[in-house]
Amino acid sequence: MPKFLLRIQFDGRNFCGSQMQKNGRTVQGELRRTLGRIFGTFSDLAGCSRTDSGVHALDYCVSFAAETRMDCSMIQKALNANLSADLAVVQVLLVPENFHARYDVVSKEYVYRIRISPVRSPFWEGLALQDVYSADLGQLNRGASLLVGTHDFSSFMAAGSKITDPVRTVVSAGFERNGDLLLFRVRADGFLYHMVRIMVGTLLAVPRKYPAEQIRLILQGKNRKLAGPTAPACGLYLEHVFYDRI
Amino acid sequence: MPKFLLRIQFDGRNFCGSQMQKNGRTVQGELRRTLGRIFGTFSDLAGCSRTDSGVHALDYCVSFAAETRMDCSMIQKALNANLSADLAVVQVLLVPENFHARYDVVSKEYVYRIRISPVRSPFWEGLALQDVYSADLGQLNRGASLLVGTHDFSSFMAAGSKITDPVRTVVSAGFERNGDLLLFRVRADGFLYHMVRIMVGTLLAVPRKYPAEQIRLILQGKNRKLAGPTAPACGLYLEHVFYDRI
Repeated sequence: MPKFLLRIQFDGRNFCGSQMQKNGRTVQGELRRTLGRIFGTFSDLAGCSRTDSGVHALDYCVSFAAETRMDCSMIQKALNANLSADLAVVQVLLVPENFHARYDVVSKEYVYRIRISPVRSPFWEGLALQDVYSADLGQLNRGASLLVGTHDFSSFMAAGSKITDPVRTVVSAGFERNGDLLLFRVRADGFLYHMVRIMVGTLLAVPRKYPAEQIRLILQGKNRKLAGPTAPACGLYLEHVFYDRI
Repeated sequence: MPKFLLRIQFDGRNFCGSQMQKNGRTVQGELRRTLGRIFGTFSDLAGCSRTDSGVHALDYCVSFAAETRMDCSMIQKALNANLSADLAVVQVLLVPENFHARYDVVSKEYVYRIRISPVRSPFWEGLALQDVYSADLGQLNRGASLLVGTHDFSSFMAAGSKITDPVRTVVSAGFERNGDLLLFRVRADGFLYHMVRIMVGTLLAVPRKYPAEQIRLILQGKNRKLAGPTAPACGLYLEHVFYDRI
C-alpha cells in the first residue's frame, strides 16, 4: 500500500496540540477526519512529534498509508479543500513503505518568536511572546552557544517528565533580530519536554539574572530548578523536520 | 474639556467594520464600551473613516473629549488593559479642542496585501488575498502610475454610492514585492467607497485583460462597469492617516 508524507502548517491558537485527544480539537483529530473523508480507510497515521496546545508549525510532518490512485498533487488539493483554514498541506511526497514520520526524523528545528515592543499588536496575539526587553544580541548568543553540543539536558526538561535518557545533541542555537522580532532558532536530534521553551525562558533571563557562563553551570547541575522559567507556548514554531531518506 | 487622539490598530477579521452598528461587533462599539468604563462620560467620539467588515488597520484614528486627570500614557495603558486582543492603542495624543479625527484628515494611505503562492497559509487566512498570479511589477506599476493625480474616480467607486463629487487626488500608487507578498500602496486626499479594492481588482487584471494604458480609458469612461472586480476586504489595511496640525 503506498505511503505518503504530508508537510503541513498550522496556526496552533485553536488547537489543543497535535496529538489525538478525547476532548479538544487537535491537529491529528482534524487530519484523521479529513483523511477518512477522502480515502475511506487509511492506516499507520504517524506525526513527527507531539506539540503542546498553542504551539504552531511551519513544517509538521505526518505519514500515512492509503490505497489510492490519486497522485501527490491531487491528494494535496483534496486535503486543502477539506481541511479547516488554520491547517494547510504544503507538500505531499510518496515515501518508502517502511517510512515513519517520527522514527525517521534526523533532526528538527524550532524557532521561537519574541516581539520586542512596549505595545501589544493585534496581529501577533498568540503568535509571539510580547516583551519590552531590548536584548543585547551578543550576550544572548554567548549564552545560546553554550547549549550547542551533546549534553545531558535534564535542567531543560519539564519537571515530572518520564524520559530516561536526557542526553540530546544540539546542532545549532542562536538569536537574530528582524525588525520588532527577536528570533531564537535551535536545531537538535531530539527535544525533551518543554526543552525549547525552558531554553528561551532561561536565555532571556541571562543578562538580567546570570552571566552567560551560568548556562554551563545550569547544564552541569542537571536540575530543572537551576534554569529559568518556561516561556509561553504562543511564541514556539516547529520550523523544519529533517529526514535522511527523502 | 481636553481632547485626545487615539492611533489604533485592529485585526478586522472579527469586526463588522469600524462604524457603530445596532447588531454586530464593531471597532467603534468596542471603543465606546471601553471609554465608558474608563471615563464614565466622554463626548465627540469620531473615527477618521468608515472601514468595511474584514478590513484591517495599522493606523486608525479616533478623537474624543473627556474630563480627566490622566495623562496620555495612563490613558493608553488603561485602554490597552481593557480592550480585546484584536484592538490595540499604539499612541495617545492631546489635540486642540476643535480637532476632529475625520474632518482634519489631510490624506490617508492604504496598503493591500496579496500573497502570491499556490498554497494557502494558515497564518495569512483573512489577512491577505491569496493569488497564484506571479506579477510583472513593471507592468503593474505602469498601470498604477496612471491613477496618480486629480481625477474623477467614478469608475473606481462602488455602484449605488451616493457621493456627488467623485474627484479625488491620488498622491502615490504603486506595487512592491516583499518575499511571497505583493503590496499595493496608495495615498490620496480621500477615497470613494471601495475605491482601493476596485483599483486592486482592476490593476491585477491589467496584464491579463487590458494593456496598462487601458487604465486611462477606464478613468475617462467614468463608469464602474469599465473597471475590474472589487478585490476582497481581507487584503486591505488602513496604513497611515496624515494630519496637518499634529
